[in-house]
Amino acid sequence: MNDLLSVEEAQELILHSVQTFSETVEMSLLQAVGRALAEDIVSPVHVPPFDNAAVDGYAVVAKDTESATVNSPARLRVVRTVHAGDVADFTIGRGEAARVMTGAPVPVGADAMVMIEDTEQRGSEVWIKSPARIGQHIRRRGEAVAQGNTVLQKGQSLGAGEILALAAIGRGSVPVIRPASVCLLTTGDELVEPGQPLPAGKIYNSNRYALSVQIGETGAVLDSLHVPDDPVATREALRQAQEHDMVLTAGGVSVGERDFVKQAVQSLGELRFWRVAVKPGKPIAFGRVGQALFVGLPGNPVSAMVTFELFVRPALRKMMGHRHLFRPQVQATLEHDLGAIGGRREYIRGRLRWSDGRWLARSTGSQASGMVASMIGANALIVAPARSELRQGDLVNVIMIDLPSGNG
Amino acid sequence: MNDLLSVEEAQELILHSVQTFSETVEMSLLQAVGRALAEDIVSPVHVPPFDNAAVDGYAVVAKDTESATVNSPARLRVVRTVHAGDVADFTIGRGEAARVMTGAPVPVGADAMVMIEDTEQRGSEVWIKSPARIGQHIRRRGEAVAQGNTVLQKGQSLGAGEILALAAIGRGSVPVIRPASVCLLTTGDELVEPGQPLPAGKIYNSNRYALSVQIGETGAVLDSLHVPDDPVATREALRQAQEHDMVLTAGGVSVGERDFVKQAVQSLGELRFWRVAVKPGKPIAFGRVGQALFVGLPGNPVSAMVTFELFVRPALRKMMGHRHLFRPQVQATLEHDLGAIGGRREYIRGRLRWSDGRWLARSTGSQASGMVASMIGANALIVAPARSELRQGDLVNVIMIDLPSGNG
Repeated sequence: MNDLLSVEEAQELILHSVQTFSETVEMSLLQAVGRALAEDIVSPVHVPPFDNAAVDGYAVVAKDTESATVNSPARLRVVRTVHAGDVADFTIGRGEAARVMTGAPVPVGADAMVMIEDTEQRGSEVWIKSPARIGQHIRRRGEAVAQGNTVLQKGQSLGAGEILALAAIGRGSVPVIRPASVCLLTTGDELVEPGQPLPAGKIYNSNRYALSVQIGETGAVLDSLHVPDDPVATREALRQAQEHDMVLTAGGVSVGERDFVKQAVQSLGELRFWRVAVKPGKPIAFGRVGQALFVGLPGNPVSAMVTFELFVRPALRKMMGHRHLFRPQVQATLEHDLGAIGGRREYIRGRLRWSDGRWLARSTGSQASGMVASMIGANALIVAPARSELRQGDLVNVIMIDLPSGNG
Repeated sequence: MNDLLSVEEAQELILHSVQTFSETVEMSLLQAVGRALAEDIVSPVHVPPFDNAAVDGYAVVAKDTESATVNSPARLRVVRTVHAGDVADFTIGRGEAARVMTGAPVPVGADAMVMIEDTEQRGSEVWIKSPARIGQHIRRRGEAVAQGNTVLQKGQSLGAGEILALAAIGRGSVPVIRPASVCLLTTGDELVEPGQPLPAGKIYNSNRYALSVQIGETGAVLDSLHVPDDPVATREALRQAQEHDMVLTAGGVSVGERDFVKQAVQSLGELRFWRVAVKPGKPIAFGRVGQALFVGLPGNPVSAMVTFELFVRPALRKMMGHRHLFRPQVQATLEHDLGAIGGRREYIRGRLRWSDGRWLARSTGSQASGMVASMIGANALIVAPARSELRQGDLVNVIMIDLPSGNG
């Protein structure tokens, strides 16, 4: 048992012990969503790839229109029509114009587009009634992205906006850092799977489902299994689990519990217990089984979820190459008293809402660690400093774990 | 062409035209993540289902310990040991104690738990050195959730916390509102799929990928196809698409463009054009093909993404039964001048970051609608009112579209 660690010290220790994977996987754009780029992405093309019309209208030589007025329009001969997708394999000379649709190439020789609304078509001629400015309504080749430019950097997390940019430069797939594989073990003869009848003395295995969601949200690949309280089965499960990047247990490794997991981890690798100055969160077990990182979370479901958020999620994000590992932290005004906080910092499940130019925070109810209902609707963790006395109106730090709901 | 609509009027019209589906699907907990509950969920069990030990220690009759001191401990006979998962099918009488592990049932007759650290084991006896308070270290049956209580309400969106509560009450599956099915059509002979070579006059089809990500994030089921500029193919594609709940096009239905989509929609259903006072966002086409809602987004990828966010996402969320349809809106201080805004409200792609107790917002660069790079790293839309002049330091409304990055 080590000395008492602060949350930040424990986070640093865990992050220090994991490395970003060197293996990359080429993934199609839609598979790559939520993952981190493994290398800088340079555009092989100009976007747009050619000068093109920003409006439906006529491509003209601006000089032809410089003295145009309503009463004395420039009368230009319309030589061709260019639709989007066409090649403009001709040249516009003085006195000429081409009908060009939005997105279609502007032919060589033309240096301005005139919107159709500002023109009049007269047989094979178009009449332009005011001077065109050079370059007007033309999107220039490469103006959005120049060929050879770095569009996205290594470590960038990919969402809809980044996928847009990748598709626009013609990337059908990109190299991302490979997904972490996590083996989630729940242990304990008292646990019954949801959906089954509940015999006397048993409780439902909720950790398996809540942690599976949390692991899945990181983009890691998950194997999940429940192991009975049996030394042989436990050892065999851990032996298989060590093929993964991380072995995560909930329960079974606290001081004083049946120690089948503890024994098996110690025989296959190494195990330490950390006492972190945090509530909820009993001692966290930390070590290795084979090549896998081993993290033993508390068996209590609320404690397991909060400690996953604080310690495991950042480690998985680091493994998978993300630049940003932590959630955003904001300051909020407490909507009610939280009372006296004990000797350990508390992370209080709560709800943030924006009102009158500031965040308001309230707890989601009783914070006893068995209170699974306190996770319902929680979009934030209120950080209550050790030995503080928190009252309505006080300003507190809050970790945002989800976007708050909008109105309506 | 109707009158100019405000963004709010257009949102109201679209939401008015869609109904929440009445069909529900029973989904396993992990499938149900991100979906909305179709009915209230009542707990069939108490959580915890029985009085259980919150600590490892001894279950005692508190009255036996009322005069206990270090020098004159209460000496109790240890009658049994109860592990988690066991049934406590015996009774504790006066002068007796049972060894009970964390989570295991507290036997009938006992009314307090004493932590093992506060006891001394002497052969078949345990010595208790200070009085126990009635109820201490016992988690009472039903204290987290009482049997018959409504745990989650219809319309609740399901995340990790809600899945925890559902598993804890033994639900292996829940009824959710069925997913919407969306058919995304991109049109235009100028479009080439990313990953293919880019012939002269062509551009990459980025809409298909960016909108696929946005649609997927709502939980809708997606069919996506590209249709060439051909009346027969377009009509056939739309005929198949009308089997979906929503048909979404990007491009192909603006005023003045080749109107194969327009003609096909008009022949299979109905079509109106809305001019919404918003930038980016050309006229939005809106109607029906068969039973499907038809929405025609602008062809420009940035305009398509922003109008999807403003008009389509809330409609899909309503169809799928979510209680909250919109993103949160906050106020932020501008980090730089945005200059003069024209006659339409602008939604400016930007980044929010929290600093010194307030949100700071900056744009992600040139906001011309072809500027696909402006979507990179954008976590917000800055709402710039029509005919305003926005300067550094001004307070603006900002829609949060993603959680900002934390530090580190």
